[in-house]
Amino acid sequence: MKIVILSGGVGGARFVRGVAEVVEPADVTVIGNVGDDVEVLGMHVSPDLDSILYALAGLNDEARGWGRSGETWQTLETVAALGGEAWFSLGDRDLGLHLVRTQALHAGQPLSAVTARIATALGVQTRLLPATDDRLRTWIDTAAGEFPFQEWFVGRGHRDEAEGVRFEGAESAQPAPGVLEAIDAANLLLIAPSNPYVSVEPILAVTAIREALAQRRVPCVAISPLIGGRAVKGPADRMLARIAGGTSPRHVAGCYAGLIDSLVLDEADADDLDGLGEVRPIVAHTLMSDAGARRRLAETALGVVRA
Amino acid sequence: MKIVILSGGVGGARFVRGVAEVVEPADVTVIGNVGDDVEVLGMHVSPDLDSILYALAGLNDEARGWGRSGETWQTLETVAALGGEAWFSLGDRDLGLHLVRTQALHAGQPLSAVTARIATALGVQTRLLPATDDRLRTWIDTAAGEFPFQEWFVGRGHRDEAEGVRFEGAESAQPAPGVLEAIDAANLLLIAPSNPYVSVEPILAVTAIREALAQRRVPCVAISPLIGGRAVKGPADRMLARIAGGTSPRHVAGCYAGLIDSLVLDEADADDLDGLGEVRPIVAHTLMSDAGARRRLAETALGVVRA
Repeated sequence: MKIVILSGGVGGARFVRGVAEVVEPADVTVIGNVGDDVEVLGMHVSPDLDSILYALAGLNDEARGWGRSGETWQTLETVAALGGEAWFSLGDRDLGLHLVRTQALHAGQPLSAVTARIATALGVQTRLLPATDDRLRTWIDTAAGEFPFQEWFVGRGHRDEAEGVRFEGAESAQPAPGVLEAIDAANLLLIAPSNPYVSVEPILAVTAIREALAQRRVPCVAISPLIGGRAVKGPADRMLARIAGGTSPRHVAGCYAGLIDSLVLDEADADDLDGLGEVRPIVAHTLMSDAGARRRLAETALGVVRA
Repeated sequence: MKIVILSGGVGGARFVRGVAEVVEPADVTVIGNVGDDVEVLGMHVSPDLDSILYALAGLNDEARGWGRSGETWQTLETVAALGGEAWFSLGDRDLGLHLVRTQALHAGQPLSAVTARIATALGVQTRLLPATDDRLRTWIDTAAGEFPFQEWFVGRGHRDEAEGVRFEGAESAQPAPGVLEAIDAANLLLIAPSNPYVSVEPILAVTAIREALAQRRVPCVAISPLIGGRAVKGPADRMLARIAGGTSPRHVAGCYAGLIDSLVLDEADADDLDGLGEVRPIVAHTLMSDAGARRRLAETALGVVRA
């Protein structure tokens, strides 16, 4: 059984790992968000791709929730002491990946090729593809102005309410090699429990990917990132409330109109299943608090085709 | 009393620190070698400027002899694990400086401006100027071919005998802002105990700097890097033997023909003072084994004008 997962960073990465643990990892293709990629200290950083890589390689820091375990911060402390660009937290181990990737990109290699090479070096058997090799960047519109994603998210601590989201470069962005082929070959399509607006939408903003999902002949299942109407982490709940008008399952499903057949949602949200239309609700325990929980959530999503 | 020192890396840096400890540090201007600058992992690394900065800031690792104290190597270990460019040792703390400098250079700032800013951030009062802001690179000619300096020195462990040295870009390189003014204002010119061929020659390869030294109206004193005809570290002795035909004081002085008035040489070399011509020998204990030793060596050199 071939599975494709659209995924953002940390929460999505945890789910991706769960899926790769309950099926043959090589049968899973992850299409990762690149809308929050950012240039820091002259390096190209792909936070979501890296979160997925680290999770799949078992190198992620579970306690901190992002980045690598056993991380140190000597480089960034030095940068700060020298008055350099230190607003974006990059650990010493993490930096090694950014340096290798940036050098390869500058040498003309596409992001998908660099990502594949790094994944192989880390022993990751699951296939990880960026949504696109082209430049695609998420911008957040707020009352204080429009900001590049990371400036809004990290730089300003996402304190400004998001009024809207824009994806620079989306019109001309082409899917990375293998993306459409993977969707076409899949028996099941999954949308990870990531922020719909800033983690999944930038993937769907690549027109050919959205069209491929809209024309699917296999089930597509989204996992809601909300529990009791609240995000486990980050601004997904605030964004849904502001942009979609609410945080009920129908508001989450509304982000994927025409693209999903089922929505896995938490028990805490099971009392408000109105307005889901064609989308079938699947109620489950969705908090991935440990390895068992993330595997059970993966099994729940896989149940759609296994049943 | 204003002092100008021409200096290479580690040994020179130690001497520079000694001088800055026995006079007013702000009265010292160091003109540093950039011929062994190198691009590593997309970063511009200036090993000699950094050795001088770290020594003057008291951040250098005395035991290892190069780089920063308290250094860790997580980034480069990651780079190596990912199959990246890991031939040139860069510690995590050291990397912070390279990232800040590279970003500033890419933004169009000259190396001299970046160096000054970093020196200020490190609390260094001594003025450190690169010989030039232009690209000037040392190449080593050997029987195995001609190599960029660091490829010969680090990459191949300087195992190939150097037949000659070439300075790419020297013809058009201009002295960095302040270099000629500092030489003109100096009461004493010093050449640090650095490798004449690959540490000092690349500075003198900037025509206007060589001319300014040739036309000096104040004493210029070189300190020999050899003790008993042997280099404390590195290939200076082998290069002198091969290129100059020997390792006696006259061979060292010959590297600076017409540019120096005195040569500070070690007691171990005092039995072979033939052929020095106009150059006055000053015999001293030159091994800078501790802070006292480097200060005494600095005082010896300063004695030329203090006497």
